[in-house]
Amino acid sequence: MPVDDDHVRPTDRTTLRRFNTRGVYDLETINGILDEGLICHLGFVEKRGWPLVIPTAYVRVGRDVYVHGSAASRTMRTLSDGVDVCVSVTLTDGIVLARTAFNHSFNYRSVIIMGRATPVTDPEERLVALKVLTEGLVPGRWSDVRAPTASEIKASALLKIPIDEASVKLRSGPPGDEGEDLEWDTWAGVIPIETLYRPAETDPKLPQEYPIPDYVKAYRRPQ
Amino acid sequence: MPVDDDHVRPTDRTTLRRFNTRGVYDLETINGILDEGLICHLGFVEKRGWPLVIPTAYVRVGRDVYVHGSAASRTMRTLSDGVDVCVSVTLTDGIVLARTAFNHSFNYRSVIIMGRATPVTDPEERLVALKVLTEGLVPGRWSDVRAPTASEIKASALLKIPIDEASVKLRSGPPGDEGEDLEWDTWAGVIPIETLYRPAETDPKLPQEYPIPDYVKAYRRPQ
Repeated sequence: MPVDDDHVRPTDRTTLRRFNTRGVYDLETINGILDEGLICHLGFVEKRGWPLVIPTAYVRVGRDVYVHGSAASRTMRTLSDGVDVCVSVTLTDGIVLARTAFNHSFNYRSVIIMGRATPVTDPEERLVALKVLTEGLVPGRWSDVRAPTASEIKASALLKIPIDEASVKLRSGPPGDEGEDLEWDTWAGVIPIETLYRPAETDPKLPQEYPIPDYVKAYRRPQ
Repeated sequence: MPVDDDHVRPTDRTTLRRFNTRGVYDLETINGILDEGLICHLGFVEKRGWPLVIPTAYVRVGRDVYVHGSAASRTMRTLSDGVDVCVSVTLTDGIVLARTAFNHSFNYRSVIIMGRATPVTDPEERLVALKVLTEGLVPGRWSDVRAPTASEIKASALLKIPIDEASVKLRSGPPGDEGEDLEWDTWAGVIPIETLYRPAETDPKLPQEYPIPDYVKAYRRPQ
């Protein structure tokens, strides 16, 4: 449940039991991670009781997340009121090389959203969701492309999940070695990881001199 | 169930129903994706029935995957014979900008492993697992660091999952537009995504002139 416009109240299932000092619940942090990420891992319980985790596209719009739900749609169809899901978005920032094997770790920022995913069934809302998904992926793209037809809109499986129950886990900075371990004679530090968007490759079916739009040339994620 | 040394037999739950042509089950492809990835998303059903998806470290050793199971360990403790999990590893290779909104997509390679995770309880096997996790992350590191103490080994939550039921989904290449959509007047192509390992940052607690090991300087994932 939201506490106010800026925070999410930790619930029993989102309260972190381990590394509790790493738990942060302000929406600015949550939104920043969600907006920088490209894909989420969508977890749900398949109707025979198995856990399934599917990578898929998503976008945040205000206090909701829309995900492409094709993988979950078979499960969704059996539940008219939606299905419990866990949306996990992880940004991997670095490899932490400590002096001790035990303190090796990652620097990362991660959000988990738990909640009930409801299918977006209204064609009007589906069209809006497809637009924000496209614009969330590549801002500026929507006005350049052929919009979805009625049958494409019908074929789109989209889920909506409110950002009510969410938790953040993150780590940054140098290794956490302490005490006499600091004197261990080995190099220690961090290998930073960056996601690089390389120069675009034009579809071979287009003339290679076709101009690449500025929003493609200057592509980067919000940070 | 394995078919032979090179293939995994698709089971009812790993057989892909959508995009069936994207399903591949040979171990070379599965192992290649698992060995290139850095983190997995581990999904399981929490004891109250909620799906949980946690990012965590993993390593493949032969036909098994070891994961750091601290998040799952509360659940594991209630199940002496293990817990059903889904291990999802995704490499995001590019953003596919089609001429139609509907055909926008990602180029990616993804593996899902379903199975029963069993806790690694034997101290000897735990030590081996910690070693292969460290060496899988940074080959060459183990011999430079302080090995885990008995209490660190005891504090390590490790799970083992066999690569028996697994499926691969992948997409590569230019956009999939067809027919008259090919004449839509817009640029189309792919923005390639690369994971970049930047120059290491030395721990401020070390003298900055401490030599950086070659295995850190030349760090990259197997490809």
